[in-house]
Amino acid sequence: MRKIIVINSGSSSLKFKLFESPSKNVLASGLIERIGLDDSIITIKYGDKKKHREVQAIKDHTVAVDLLLQLLKKLDIVTDLNEISAVGHRVVAGGEYFKKSVPVDGNVIKKIEDIIELAPLHNPANLVGIKVFKKLLPNALSVVAFDTAFHQTLPEENFMYSTPYDWYKEYGVRRYGAHGISHRYVSLRAAELMGKPVEDLKLVTCHLGAGASITAVKNGKSFDTSMGFTPLTGIQMATRSGDVDVSLVAYMMKKLKVKSVSEILYMLNKESGFLGVSGVSLDMRDVEAAAAKNNKRAELAIKLFYNDIVKYIGQYYMEMKGIDGIVFTAGIGENSPETREAIMNELSFLGVTIDKEENTKRGTEGIVSGKDSSITVMRIPTDEEYMICCDVEALMNK
Amino acid sequence: MRKIIVINSGSSSLKFKLFESPSKNVLASGLIERIGLDDSIITIKYGDKKKHREVQAIKDHTVAVDLLLQLLKKLDIVTDLNEISAVGHRVVAGGEYFKKSVPVDGNVIKKIEDIIELAPLHNPANLVGIKVFKKLLPNALSVVAFDTAFHQTLPEENFMYSTPYDWYKEYGVRRYGAHGISHRYVSLRAAELMGKPVEDLKLVTCHLGAGASITAVKNGKSFDTSMGFTPLTGIQMATRSGDVDVSLVAYMMKKLKVKSVSEILYMLNKESGFLGVSGVSLDMRDVEAAAAKNNKRAELAIKLFYNDIVKYIGQYYMEMKGIDGIVFTAGIGENSPETREAIMNELSFLGVTIDKEENTKRGTEGIVSGKDSSITVMRIPTDEEYMICCDVEALMNK
Repeated sequence: MRKIIVINSGSSSLKFKLFESPSKNVLASGLIERIGLDDSIITIKYGDKKKHREVQAIKDHTVAVDLLLQLLKKLDIVTDLNEISAVGHRVVAGGEYFKKSVPVDGNVIKKIEDIIELAPLHNPANLVGIKVFKKLLPNALSVVAFDTAFHQTLPEENFMYSTPYDWYKEYGVRRYGAHGISHRYVSLRAAELMGKPVEDLKLVTCHLGAGASITAVKNGKSFDTSMGFTPLTGIQMATRSGDVDVSLVAYMMKKLKVKSVSEILYMLNKESGFLGVSGVSLDMRDVEAAAAKNNKRAELAIKLFYNDIVKYIGQYYMEMKGIDGIVFTAGIGENSPETREAIMNELSFLGVTIDKEENTKRGTEGIVSGKDSSITVMRIPTDEEYMICCDVEALMNK
Repeated sequence: MRKIIVINSGSSSLKFKLFESPSKNVLASGLIERIGLDDSIITIKYGDKKKHREVQAIKDHTVAVDLLLQLLKKLDIVTDLNEISAVGHRVVAGGEYFKKSVPVDGNVIKKIEDIIELAPLHNPANLVGIKVFKKLLPNALSVVAFDTAFHQTLPEENFMYSTPYDWYKEYGVRRYGAHGISHRYVSLRAAELMGKPVEDLKLVTCHLGAGASITAVKNGKSFDTSMGFTPLTGIQMATRSGDVDVSLVAYMMKKLKVKSVSEILYMLNKESGFLGVSGVSLDMRDVEAAAAKNNKRAELAIKLFYNDIVKYIGQYYMEMKGIDGIVFTAGIGENSPETREAIMNELSFLGVTIDKEENTKRGTEGIVSGKDSSITVMRIPTDEEYMICCDVEALMNK
């Protein structure tokens, strides 16, 4: 039985999921955290709710991956490392080069290096993961899947900014979007749930996690998305502001007497959103709890969040000339019935109705709108690793 | 017969319109340009298409206003300056202090001075105009009308950014909007044209000039608007970018090797929009002409402009839960049948139809949608001076 491992490599962490192919059963999944420190933690879930955890010094990603591969053997998850036929790597930014998942070769690595500036924190860490697996599993097919690739179908009126044209031509300034693997996965699942070809549908997919973005998926292709040149913009997030007036940078530098733009951008990335508005927490559950006790700033944070979602749904309704289905996914999307109900209530003037019982459920797939609803509203847990695994399989079978 | 003069005082210019009250007939209008230079120009239109123009050194606003008042007498537009019972001044930024037009007193002047930072180029020039008229027409009632006041009815979910809460509390960071006098005027005219009380209507007013903003007017009150903390944001404009990713500031500073944020903001304010995208001109007429000859960048600029308008209409459709009427006003709104037709075509899926013949007209009031249209679409020339004159009259009669 062939196996495929899917990797999400961060600067000090490495997440993995091991699939059996073609069944796509998950054989194991886990996380190595605090790479580079003396107390790195490796956690592996496998078999029938079995869990392995150990703490030890892991000095770099090579040691981390080597340890992971040894543990897969030791825990009898694989018998021989050659069973792992392919490795799929999630890469954050693919710029305009990558419109789909591709096998890794020297040229691909060079291109990912070329666009490091588009994701200066993430792409280098992703590259480390790719290189280490190339070294330790030299016979396995190596594939990269990009978080931006799905959005490469945006028409120019939706990806261009009205900035000087040279900014685009010379420096790649445009909307790239994010969470593309998730938006693509849930749009395909939505079509399944609706029993229609995705090519015939106008969908809005709301990926609402600590990072959040909303995408218009028209006929199976990303048509517009709320994140822009970077993942700072769009709707309000856990600690990110979403869309703001760019003039604020100069104004707040003066007011706060800070010298560098990056200090203001840091505040917009790390001290804004739910955390900055509510003053309570970056976690929606805490903010909801505080709002339930009439904390005014928590109420405001939630109102802003709902309102941002409604505004983007409105944009995409107009751009696509109607909406057939709306998907809620990721942490908040899957687990906050309050959020889903609030948005459905806002859309009731369009004929959206709620299945109150189904909507109370969390973390499973389900249609949360009523049978008579003019738009089908769905709760769909995202599964980016599964989506990457599908791409890897398709490339293996080529 | 009482007379009211309405003033728009810029840093080196002064526009005026002289009304008869209560008829609100325009007795004269004009412009003094290049104040402070040796070749200042004063132009006055009056009577039956009469025009007076002279060029001379005008060293400051006091000299300018004195000259204007002398000319009004000399040209027999007024017999005695005491006929001018009131002066209405347009002021760009009123912050959160000013929710409507008010008579000027020391406290009002102090508050306008307090918020100079919200409009550092405009408010000081507006203040100069106020002070000079106070000195030269000491008996006239002095009134200030703010371009932001109409938007003070925005609910908090529409005026707050998801930035740290202190940015609002301590530094006034929020959406203020602009063109409020224009949006208010055309929403009142729209209600007249539709034959319904403005309190019963959901309107979207598109002020499309060199500066452009779109406002949701719900039940006669501004409910949301596209301009933000400053007039840089919202839809694409002649030279302004409208909404962009705030992260671009740091990225472009690095790419262009510029040291100060203000250089990037200058480019976003002065070298973007129609001019920056098309490379042809900041004037929509030139861009339309170039696009007609298949200039790709001109076509793109127009596509982005239409798309921005459609997106904001979509947001406001969702927020207000429907739209009864859409108004096009200001330079492009009044004079570009192409723009109006393109937007109406985009909305045809909602049942919007076009009165093609009426839509070809320019610069006059008219209903440009068809009789069977689900939304009434109107062309309404704006008249900010008239609106200010109405406010002045109301305060005179108090």
